[in-house]
Amino acid sequence: MTDDVVQALSKVLSAESLVTDPDILQAHRNDQAEWAPSGMPSVLVRPASTSEVRAVLDVARALRVPVVARGAGSGLSGGANAIEGCIVLSLLRMNRVLEVDRRGMLAVVQPGALNAAVKAAAAEQGLWYAPDPASWEFSTIGGNLATNAGGLCCVKYGVTGDAVLGLEVVLADGSVVRTGGRTVKNVAGYDLTRLFVGSEGTLGIITEATLRLRPRPPKATTLLATFPTLVGAGTAVSDIMGTTRPSLLELMDRTTVRAVESWKPMGLDVGAAALLLARSDAGGAQGEEEIGLMAAACERAGSTFVMNTTDEAEGELLMGARRFAFPALEQQGATLLDDVGVPISRIPELLAAVERIAEQHRVLIGTFGHAGDGNMHPTVVFDRDDLDAMTRAKQAFDDILHAALDLGGTITGEHGVGSLKRGFLPAQLGPETLHLHRTLKGALDPLGILNPGKLV
Amino acid sequence: MTDDVVQALSKVLSAESLVTDPDILQAHRNDQAEWAPSGMPSVLVRPASTSEVRAVLDVARALRVPVVARGAGSGLSGGANAIEGCIVLSLLRMNRVLEVDRRGMLAVVQPGALNAAVKAAAAEQGLWYAPDPASWEFSTIGGNLATNAGGLCCVKYGVTGDAVLGLEVVLADGSVVRTGGRTVKNVAGYDLTRLFVGSEGTLGIITEATLRLRPRPPKATTLLATFPTLVGAGTAVSDIMGTTRPSLLELMDRTTVRAVESWKPMGLDVGAAALLLARSDAGGAQGEEEIGLMAAACERAGSTFVMNTTDEAEGELLMGARRFAFPALEQQGATLLDDVGVPISRIPELLAAVERIAEQHRVLIGTFGHAGDGNMHPTVVFDRDDLDAMTRAKQAFDDILHAALDLGGTITGEHGVGSLKRGFLPAQLGPETLHLHRTLKGALDPLGILNPGKLV
Repeated sequence: MTDDVVQALSKVLSAESLVTDPDILQAHRNDQAEWAPSGMPSVLVRPASTSEVRAVLDVARALRVPVVARGAGSGLSGGANAIEGCIVLSLLRMNRVLEVDRRGMLAVVQPGALNAAVKAAAAEQGLWYAPDPASWEFSTIGGNLATNAGGLCCVKYGVTGDAVLGLEVVLADGSVVRTGGRTVKNVAGYDLTRLFVGSEGTLGIITEATLRLRPRPPKATTLLATFPTLVGAGTAVSDIMGTTRPSLLELMDRTTVRAVESWKPMGLDVGAAALLLARSDAGGAQGEEEIGLMAAACERAGSTFVMNTTDEAEGELLMGARRFAFPALEQQGATLLDDVGVPISRIPELLAAVERIAEQHRVLIGTFGHAGDGNMHPTVVFDRDDLDAMTRAKQAFDDILHAALDLGGTITGEHGVGSLKRGFLPAQLGPETLHLHRTLKGALDPLGILNPGKLV
Repeated sequence: MTDDVVQALSKVLSAESLVTDPDILQAHRNDQAEWAPSGMPSVLVRPASTSEVRAVLDVARALRVPVVARGAGSGLSGGANAIEGCIVLSLLRMNRVLEVDRRGMLAVVQPGALNAAVKAAAAEQGLWYAPDPASWEFSTIGGNLATNAGGLCCVKYGVTGDAVLGLEVVLADGSVVRTGGRTVKNVAGYDLTRLFVGSEGTLGIITEATLRLRPRPPKATTLLATFPTLVGAGTAVSDIMGTTRPSLLELMDRTTVRAVESWKPMGLDVGAAALLLARSDAGGAQGEEEIGLMAAACERAGSTFVMNTTDEAEGELLMGARRFAFPALEQQGATLLDDVGVPISRIPELLAAVERIAEQHRVLIGTFGHAGDGNMHPTVVFDRDDLDAMTRAKQAFDDILHAALDLGGTITGEHGVGSLKRGFLPAQLGPETLHLHRTLKGALDPLGILNPGKLV
């Protein structure tokens, strides 16, 4: 079968686009998700054009071989993990920023372009591509689109999907569709753009994207506040969101703060139950007013220490605490990174549930994340060599998902379902909505060649 | 057939939910779109609950009768126009604001609730429901969702779809699905919410919506600028959008300004080629700075008169000019209101094309609209009693659609395709993308009972 696939592909692709070296295949087997299963691909294709992507899908359809698209492989849900015998379709060679239209405030890019490259191309024209997943320096736009990636700035500027005007997509049947366009508003037909964004390569392969650019925001003022209780921090978050428009609002719990302090000491209060980092990029006096409102909200909620700075370097230093959160927890052992979302009013309950779960399963859980969006990353830390600890960690991970659902939340705010959380999707969606997913998947990919076994 | 339908419906609906009075049926035959064809419904149903909606679809499926959903009937594309012999399904009785969660910053509403009622309920909790179509005082949330309605504030705060967290939808097969949820970020499954938003009742009937609320913005400063050339006004628009974040950016051309002045004289410069109205709601000094940037952009682009005011009453007075734009044009004759969108860099070209079209077809066209989004409403004014003028007006209307497409734009930015622009959709989408629309429609509504002949 593998030979048939390779032979068929070799007839339609240039030699450069076709890779069968087992070491390279092995390296394209996984994304960054722990636990998620993966198989050995039969071949890696690296198309250089939309027509090569189309040719790959033609072969996949003829031979009924699954196709797993991937960008940088930095995903956190196993969405890009290979399926045994599949074609892995890397979009890294389609990495050009095709156009930056300064006056039209848009960029046209290929999926393999790094988020960082798009930001840089926009900046050259004095503009800004807002979406900033933590992986922005090494993840691709295609991966960002496939997962509808979030980040820190979405609390004010929205997620990846909010920055997409249009797409070119190759469908399972080989047709090439264009969705949306170059206008900010467009209601001519169904919102197909949003259907493909976040569909994790299960409905089509995105081969081009038209992205919305914005003016660069003014310099930000950064605020840090510590809280003696989790409830206090949660109250401050919903107060801040109800009264002002932070450009960033992040939370770290005590376990996370301690992990950061023990790895990169920066004088954080390891006795505090939680730490909030917030920013206003309103600029000037309005920025000061917003920061003032945020500080007042923190104080009302019982914060014992609030400080802010308009100095950019100092602001970056404070943000370092948040940026180190996950790597600092990784210093303490193997990690299972969760990605739950709850209505922002329920953050304290989520944090309390996570504490209970940690106690119950005798595991360490550090929680940090995008509090202003209610999107938190409880991270279970455990000893990889201890099988019992690993089992308890997995149970804790699962319990956190159930806790989020019980609070009216979601099992994934920004990382995606992939293969990691597929088993939990029915509990969130219910049978009718799940059935609708399958109807759509069946309509667009009747042979099931596009990333089967992921998401739905 | 009508008798069968009424009889079947009478078995599953309360008497109050079923209307057969011919005068009332006649009154539910059209929305506000001129030209769009309509048929006589066989019956009007006014369900009071999701289960009644479901019962109606069960009957429609069994008897293969089309169902046309409608709210206030204020649509501008014929999307809610009845089809001969159809069931018109009015959602006006399902008009409750079920919940406003102040700390969770969301509202749960039924589709028949007026946009104004949702705004009011949010305001009671110190919050803001942003979307503001011109019809906000009399259009329903359901209609806003069905068309993905725009408005004035979307230049900063997005369209209706950007304010929706989740939906309850009754599908053609009678199943009731829930999309999205109560969280701001959510990537658990396909973005079904956005698939239904803007689908004009062709994929399902929305029976509940969870809407995102925001903090109320600070008071706005309003700027007015006049320009001796259309190109100058267009240049100012893209300059303003590239450097700052207006909360409103509207344009009126000379014909529109003159129509307003002749109906409600307010001292506007009828010699100017175009007038811009802009707002900043950044507040305080930042608001002043933003207005300063906007004023500078206008002056650089050749504006001969720029003024601004922080006084709210005066700001509302200036906004009156824009609010009177369409009714003032309606004073001059029958109107054909277009709704095209172009990339903001191409606004001057669109305005020039509209001038050429007006000359060519010897019709009066007043153009106004949401310049900051590139979404303009060229409005053809003609004498309804003059058949030749009517034909020329229709030709001009069509040519404007083609002009927008030639500029990389869209045939509808916010009003929808409905039946009015259905013939133009293939030119915008192309055969593959149109086919994908039909695939989706066929998958969700295989019997074609939901608003057939609209949109796709």
